[in-house]
Amino acid sequence: MEESRDMVIIGGGPGGYVAALRAAQLGRRPLLVEEHRVGGVCMNWGCIPTKFLLHQTALLRELRTNKRLSGPLDGVTCDWKRVQEDRVRIIDRLVKGTEFLLEKNGVERVKGRAVLLDERRVRIASEEGERVVEAGTVILAAGSRSADLPFLKADGRRVITSREALELDPPPGSLLVVGAGAIGLELGSVYARLGTKVTVLEILPGILPGSDREMATRLERLLKSQGLSLFTRMRIERAVETPEGVRLEGACLKNDTPFSFEAERVLLAAGRVPNADTFLERPGLLDLDRGFVRVDERLRTSLPGVYAVGDLVGGKLLAHKASHEGILAAENASGADRHRDDSALPLAVFTAPEYASVGLSEEEARERVPGFLTGTFSLQANGRALTMDAAEGLVKLIAGPDDVLLGAHILAPGASDMIPELTLAVRLRLKLRDVSETIHIHPTISESIAEAALKAKGLALHALNTGRF
Amino acid sequence: MEESRDMVIIGGGPGGYVAALRAAQLGRRPLLVEEHRVGGVCMNWGCIPTKFLLHQTALLRELRTNKRLSGPLDGVTCDWKRVQEDRVRIIDRLVKGTEFLLEKNGVERVKGRAVLLDERRVRIASEEGERVVEAGTVILAAGSRSADLPFLKADGRRVITSREALELDPPPGSLLVVGAGAIGLELGSVYARLGTKVTVLEILPGILPGSDREMATRLERLLKSQGLSLFTRMRIERAVETPEGVRLEGACLKNDTPFSFEAERVLLAAGRVPNADTFLERPGLLDLDRGFVRVDERLRTSLPGVYAVGDLVGGKLLAHKASHEGILAAENASGADRHRDDSALPLAVFTAPEYASVGLSEEEARERVPGFLTGTFSLQANGRALTMDAAEGLVKLIAGPDDVLLGAHILAPGASDMIPELTLAVRLRLKLRDVSETIHIHPTISESIAEAALKAKGLALHALNTGRF
Repeated sequence: MEESRDMVIIGGGPGGYVAALRAAQLGRRPLLVEEHRVGGVCMNWGCIPTKFLLHQTALLRELRTNKRLSGPLDGVTCDWKRVQEDRVRIIDRLVKGTEFLLEKNGVERVKGRAVLLDERRVRIASEEGERVVEAGTVILAAGSRSADLPFLKADGRRVITSREALELDPPPGSLLVVGAGAIGLELGSVYARLGTKVTVLEILPGILPGSDREMATRLERLLKSQGLSLFTRMRIERAVETPEGVRLEGACLKNDTPFSFEAERVLLAAGRVPNADTFLERPGLLDLDRGFVRVDERLRTSLPGVYAVGDLVGGKLLAHKASHEGILAAENASGADRHRDDSALPLAVFTAPEYASVGLSEEEARERVPGFLTGTFSLQANGRALTMDAAEGLVKLIAGPDDVLLGAHILAPGASDMIPELTLAVRLRLKLRDVSETIHIHPTISESIAEAALKAKGLALHALNTGRF
Repeated sequence: MEESRDMVIIGGGPGGYVAALRAAQLGRRPLLVEEHRVGGVCMNWGCIPTKFLLHQTALLRELRTNKRLSGPLDGVTCDWKRVQEDRVRIIDRLVKGTEFLLEKNGVERVKGRAVLLDERRVRIASEEGERVVEAGTVILAAGSRSADLPFLKADGRRVITSREALELDPPPGSLLVVGAGAIGLELGSVYARLGTKVTVLEILPGILPGSDREMATRLERLLKSQGLSLFTRMRIERAVETPEGVRLEGACLKNDTPFSFEAERVLLAAGRVPNADTFLERPGLLDLDRGFVRVDERLRTSLPGVYAVGDLVGGKLLAHKASHEGILAAENASGADRHRDDSALPLAVFTAPEYASVGLSEEEARERVPGFLTGTFSLQANGRALTMDAAEGLVKLIAGPDDVLLGAHILAPGASDMIPELTLAVRLRLKLRDVSETIHIHPTISESIAEAALKAKGLALHALNTGRF
C-alpha cells in the first residue's frame, strides 16, 4: 500500500531538519526521515561536541600557560569523565530542542532508513516495518562520512574517525592525525591540550589546504608552538599494526626521504565522502559527480521534483552551508526562485586562536583579480589583544581595484563571531570605506578589521603604511 | 617670542592622538600637547588596564565556576603582583607604540600643559619653559575626569576614582561602588572575582542607565548571581569616615527607607566631567553647555579654526567616539565637510558576559518609531553558547516598520566583537533580511543574530515564533 506525502526529506542533519522547518513555515507538510538522531553528524558527532571539547581544553591550556596565576596549578586537570558526561548532556538537550521545534512546526519525523526508488517514491524502513511513500517533493540531505584511505581503513579501535575521537577515554598517550584540515587540527588540539603526543601528517604543502597561505602558515606556526607536531608534504604509503598501536610509513615529498611514525591510535581526518550510495535504489538513478549528487544553482537534481543539499552535493562541507541550502531548496520547492551563491560562504577553524575566513584568499585574488588590494593588520598593535595575551593574530582583507571587498581572513580569539561583518560586506559588495568608516568599539579586536581596511588604502592609523604609499 | 604652527592639538588621548595621525596623513604638521602620557586616560588609566584586569580575573572566575576541572583548585589564586606588573608593561608597550607612530608620521609632541589664549594662540608650559604658539588650526581634545559628588570627594585613599581602583594592592576586603554604569560594573566585577565584597549603589531605577531595559535587567540578574550586590534607586546623602573605612548613608527611593553601607573603600563611578576648565585662559572664551564645549555637527567650536572632540564635547563618553571625532575634525580642518552621526555609535560593557549595543533601545523605539519590530533570540537555543556554558545571553534587534535595522543589543561572550555586523547594518540602513540571509558560521554565537532578525518577522528557525504570528 502506498501513501502520499507532500514532501519527504531524507536526512535529519543541519541540511534536512532546517529544510523541514522552513518548508513547514511555508505551509508544506514535510516528512523527515532520519536513521540515527536528529541533528545529524554535526550536532551529535561533529561540530557541537568538538566545540565543547575545545572550550573545555582551552581553559586547561590557559591555566597551563597563564603566568599570572599562582598555586598548585600542576595538580589541576580536566575531569574527563565529567566532560564526557556533559558532552552527552549538551547534545541531548540540543537534539530534544530540535525535536521539539520540528514537532511544534508540524513536521512528521520517522526514525528509519529511506531509499529513493524514483523521482516520486521513497521506501522507508523503520521499526514499524517498511512502507513506500509517494512524495510531491523530495529533498535529499543524507550528508557525508569520513573517508578511508586505500591502505588505512577505520576500524573504530586503533584507526578511528572524528566520531570515535570524541570519546577516547582515557586520552591516548599518542595520536597520529592523518590530514591537517579543520577536523584534524581541532581534534589534534583537544588531545594535545590533554597531554597526548599528537602528530599531524598532511600530504599537501600546508595545513588547511585551500586557505589563504599567509594565514594558514601563521596558524601552523602557532599550533606548533602549542605542542602539536605538524608535518606537511607527507605521503603515507603503509599502515602497520604494532603491539603498541599503529605505525604509519611513507615518504616526505620535500626531499623524498622515508618517514615512520607510531602511535596508540590513528585518527583519519583526510576528507569525507558523500552518502549518495546509501539511499539510491540503483546506481544511475541520479546524476552524480565523483560521488556527489549533481545539482543546478537552484539545488535541483537530475530528477524533477528532487532537490539535494549539504555535504551530499559537494562544495565546502560545512553545516551552515547545508542549512542555507536546506532553506533554499525548501523555498524553491515551494515556488521561490533562489540561487546558490558561494561567494560569501564563511568558514572557521576553532583552534586557539580561531581562524575564520570568507571569500577570496590572496592566492585566488592573484589569479582572478588584476589590481587587487590587500590590507593586513597585526594584533601586536591591538590593545585588546594585548590584554588577552592574543597578539599573535592577524586580520587580512582583500579588495578589488574598485575597493569592493572580496575576501577577509581573521586569526584571533573569537574570529568565527567576528567574520559576519565581513560576510555581510562581501555579500553586499560593500567597499573598504564602508567598513573603515563604521565605528568599532575601543578596545576590541574587531578594531583591527577597520585598520586593515584603512591599511589597504595606505591610511592605517595604528600601523605604518609602508609599501603601498 | 611667538612661534607659528600649522596645527596645535591639546590632549593626547584617543581623540587627540588619532586626530594628529589623521592630520599628518593629510599633509598637516600637528603639534600635540599632552600633559601626562600619550594615550590619555583610556590607554593609561581606563579602557586598556580595565580590560586587562577583567581578562585576568575572568580566568579566575572560570576556574572557580567550571565544574569539569579537578585538583586543588581552591589553592589557585591570582598573582596580583604579577598582574599589576604586567598591566604596567602592556600599557608601556602601547604608549611607546603610539609615540613611535606619532614620530614616524611627523607629529611633534610636547609634554606640557596647554592653555588656549584665543582663537589662534596657545600657551604651552613644559619643562623647557613657557612658549606661545600661533596655530592655523586648534583641536581641543582634553578629555574628562571622574566626577565628585557634593558630599563625597575623591581623596585617592579611601574614596577613590577608577584610576586608583586599577592598583589596589592588596585588593580590599570590601568596596562600595557609587554608580552602576560601565566603569562601576567593570571594576566591581574585577574585585568581586578577587574575593572583595562589592556593593554597587545606583540612584537610577536600573543599571546602565540609558540602555535597553530588558538587556540591562538581564545583565543585572547575572551580575548578582556572580556575587555583586547591586542596589538601584539608592540616593546617597552622607559619607562618614569610620575607623575601618567609609560609611555611606542615604535613602532607598523605592520605599523611602534609610540605608547604611560600610566598606574599606568607596569607588566613585557616578559620571565624568569635561576638562574644559583646565585649558581656557578665561571663562567665556568658548561657548560651553553644562561644562562641555559646544560644537556644531562639523565639530567646530564657537571660535573660528578651533575644533573640539571626544569627552570634552559630551554625548557618550567613549574612546572610539573620541577617535572618530578626532578623524572628522582633522579632515574638516583640512578641507573636508564631514558630519557627526551618532546613530551608529556602538558601546560595550566588558562584564561576563559582555553587553554590546548600537542604535535604539526598545524604549527609544517605542517613543520614536511607530510600528517598530523587535526580534529576540535566547542563547539557550544556541549550540555554541551551550558548549561555552554561556546560555544566559540574549540577542535583540530593533527595526522600523520598513524592516530597516535601528538598534541591536547583544549580551554574550564576545559581544563587543560581534556588534560590528550590526553597527554596519544600522549605519547603512540595511534591512533585517540583509542580516538573516547572510550565512553565519555554525556553530557560533553570532548565528543568534540571524535568528533574531528572522524572529522579528516570525520566521525564526531555532525558536518558536510565538506572539507576532
